Amino acid sequence: MKRIVLLRLGHRPERDKRITTHVGLTARLLGAEGMLLASNDPGIIATLEDVVSRWGGNFYIKNNVNYKQEIKEWKAAGGKVCHLSMYGINLPDVTDELKSCDKLMIVVGAEKVPPEIYQLADWNVAVGSQPHSEVAAVAITLDRIADGEPLKREFQNAELTIVPAERGKQVIENLRD
Amino acid sequence: MKRIVLLRLGHRPERDKRITTHVGLTARLLGAEGMLLASNDPGIIATLEDVVSRWGGNFYIKNNVNYKQEIKEWKAAGGKVCHLSMYGINLPDVTDELKSCDKLMIVVGAEKVPPEIYQLADWNVAVGSQPHSEVAAVAITLDRIADGEPLKREFQNAELTIVPAERGKQVIENLRD
Repeated sequence: MKRIVLLRLGHRPERDKRITTHVGLTARLLGAEGMLLASNDPGIIATLEDVVSRWGGNFYIKNNVNYKQEIKEWKAAGGKVCHLSMYGINLPDVTDELKSCDKLMIVVGAEKVPPEIYQLADWNVAVGSQPHSEVAAVAITLDRIADGEPLKREFQNAELTIVPAERGKQVIENLRD
Repeated sequence: MKRIVLLRLGHRPERDKRITTHVGLTARLLGAEGMLLASNDPGIIATLEDVVSRWGGNFYIKNNVNYKQEIKEWKAAGGKVCHLSMYGINLPDVTDELKSCDKLMIVVGAEKVPPEIYQLADWNVAVGSQPHSEVAAVAITLDRIADGEPLKREFQNAELTIVPAERGKQVIENLRD
């Protein structure tokens, strides 16, 4: 079972609140086990934990991590690190390598990232070498490297489950013990 | 040549400024010809037009459109309409149909959309039936239905071009007549 974790750098509370929330929702949707936030923003944690408690699964969010320490520990445990930005090797040229990796940390910054992240990463990867939505970059990367169909995963222990429907909204409230 | 246009509904200036900008960047990156904004926000238009003028291509942005009128005209000209939300048919189950469509409007809302959009759309499509980033939904959908490799498109007449690099940033300034 492949392990993927997302590391979010450079998040500024207020300014990046919604984008970082979308990064977290996208990581959860596409099979990451959790998101490490290298800033202090308990509001983001609360928002995403609320999603997990209602919609299921085990996605975790860790507030205010030391990113260098997290990268160091991840690598020491055999993990690889892929930094997504506008400037790296184009994703199609490294997809196979990323896909074959059992333990992958995906790093995405906000507008500014510490320059040393380019050295710490095993891969610096561009998702198209064009102005960059970090949400789209995470989405496309995780979708392309997923094992199986990531959009058909089930999230265990959900309070709410959507029933796919051609028109309108169908949501089941699951009774739990 | 397939035509794809994005229609953004329910955008609230200020609150949705950055998410809508990311939706626009993502649509441009993945081959949409333009974005129709069903709200009045000249700031978004200016931001995205600035990206296009520096980074190339012909992506257009139309401010403050009447969404019903746009959908009606698109359909009258033979186009189809795909609304992305949390509640539709799961994307993997309609990808082939969407991909075979020559003229496709992708509609994404912000938190609230007018209920009639579910009736106006030819397809209501969920990108995973889970809490939803509209940026990720647009990214995954356009990536999956693209002809060829969307991340290797060239954008004509760019002032700036990124050279893919393993470390650091390499940007070429192109001289123009």
